[in-house]
Amino acid sequence: MNNIRLLEEKINYQFHDRSLLENAVTHSSYMKECNREGQSNERLEFLGDAFFDAIIGEALYKMFPRKEEGFLSRTRATLVCEKSLAKVALALCIGDHLLLGHGEERSGGRQRESILADTMEAIFGAVYLDGGFEAAKQVVLALFEQAIDDARHGKYVVTDYKTALQEKLQSQGITDIKYELLQESGPDHDKTFLVQLSVEGKPQATGQGKSKKQAEQCAAEAMMEREMNVF
Amino acid sequence: MNNIRLLEEKINYQFHDRSLLENAVTHSSYMKECNREGQSNERLEFLGDAFFDAIIGEALYKMFPRKEEGFLSRTRATLVCEKSLAKVALALCIGDHLLLGHGEERSGGRQRESILADTMEAIFGAVYLDGGFEAAKQVVLALFEQAIDDARHGKYVVTDYKTALQEKLQSQGITDIKYELLQESGPDHDKTFLVQLSVEGKPQATGQGKSKKQAEQCAAEAMMEREMNVF
Repeated sequence: MNNIRLLEEKINYQFHDRSLLENAVTHSSYMKECNREGQSNERLEFLGDAFFDAIIGEALYKMFPRKEEGFLSRTRATLVCEKSLAKVALALCIGDHLLLGHGEERSGGRQRESILADTMEAIFGAVYLDGGFEAAKQVVLALFEQAIDDARHGKYVVTDYKTALQEKLQSQGITDIKYELLQESGPDHDKTFLVQLSVEGKPQATGQGKSKKQAEQCAAEAMMEREMNVF
Repeated sequence: MNNIRLLEEKINYQFHDRSLLENAVTHSSYMKECNREGQSNERLEFLGDAFFDAIIGEALYKMFPRKEEGFLSRTRATLVCEKSLAKVALALCIGDHLLLGHGEERSGGRQRESILADTMEAIFGAVYLDGGFEAAKQVVLALFEQAIDDARHGKYVVTDYKTALQEKLQSQGITDIKYELLQESGPDHDKTFLVQLSVEGKPQATGQGKSKKQAEQCAAEAMMEREMNVF
């Protein structure tokens, strides 16, 4: 069985136009090095990325009929992230199907999470173009069945915003995160704390709570909510 | 004709389940003040937002078969932004259909761009749930026909990244943007300039070019590309 047919089996979708799937596994490094006519998978990734978000969003919307928008956004952000996509790609050995440039090949591109994740999104884009929305939805939901099921059982529910924020920022090389008590008010048995969160010396958010810890969590949550919608 | 039927006429879609459209025009301030059971339009907005992105993304993908992913992303970002959604909402007088709390009403909520834009996305989510993907696509593409046509004629092509970045940052209250020449290299007739862009004293991106101006544009473009994908 050739490479593309095997990939079709893995994603359980048969293309009318296989050149779309070939395009989806073509990394830009391959096009550049080989000086080939045509396009890498970046445009398909652009297309597939948005459909992936929409399909996962709908699954969560229906799975959690009583949850608020903030919960849905946070849960989706975890499900659609590079790590989550790369995990699915690794399980399918997507690396074996990639067309890569030699430089990228030598530096371990076949195992690189960013390349694997982008390729998955490009594959979703290709399925959409070939078979329409319902076909793409079926492929995405089948491949993410386990991840969606984990979400159903609360695996991705963020309860500790301070830790979650710290991890996000650390992944961007930012470690200077400070919580400062701005105000304590109310009688001793019913105090309210106001805390300010600063990142690299710049105030980012404030939070209120019945304990310092609660106020800090609240500030971290506020910043995460906002940063998920930047620009 | 009642309010909801008139709105159906405006968006040229007739609901099987009109409660979905009623939900889409229900602002959270209304639910809070009236102490009502049920949900505001925020969950529908979550759903519709992603489908809106996907539908506009596909339109641009097909309209510009030779353009790279970066161009498509930038163009879409302009088309799907709050201002663009609010413009369409204003043309349809969506404000007339909103269920708002009294406080929001008094403070001009019916004309507020953020509320109008969110409501449009919620309407797209409602159409998707009621009629499926093709119905949502038809509604979105009809309402954004003019905006998409403007994109076709290059209205949204960013050519001046410095200005575009400055506008984005200013809208967030950030005005401290500096470009610093780090290096000049090469012979006089073929110099290369390396420029560093800092925002509020923090280095954000570098850019290279055959002139200082070109290097600055390149740095601004790099930061914009990155910021469009933050978190």
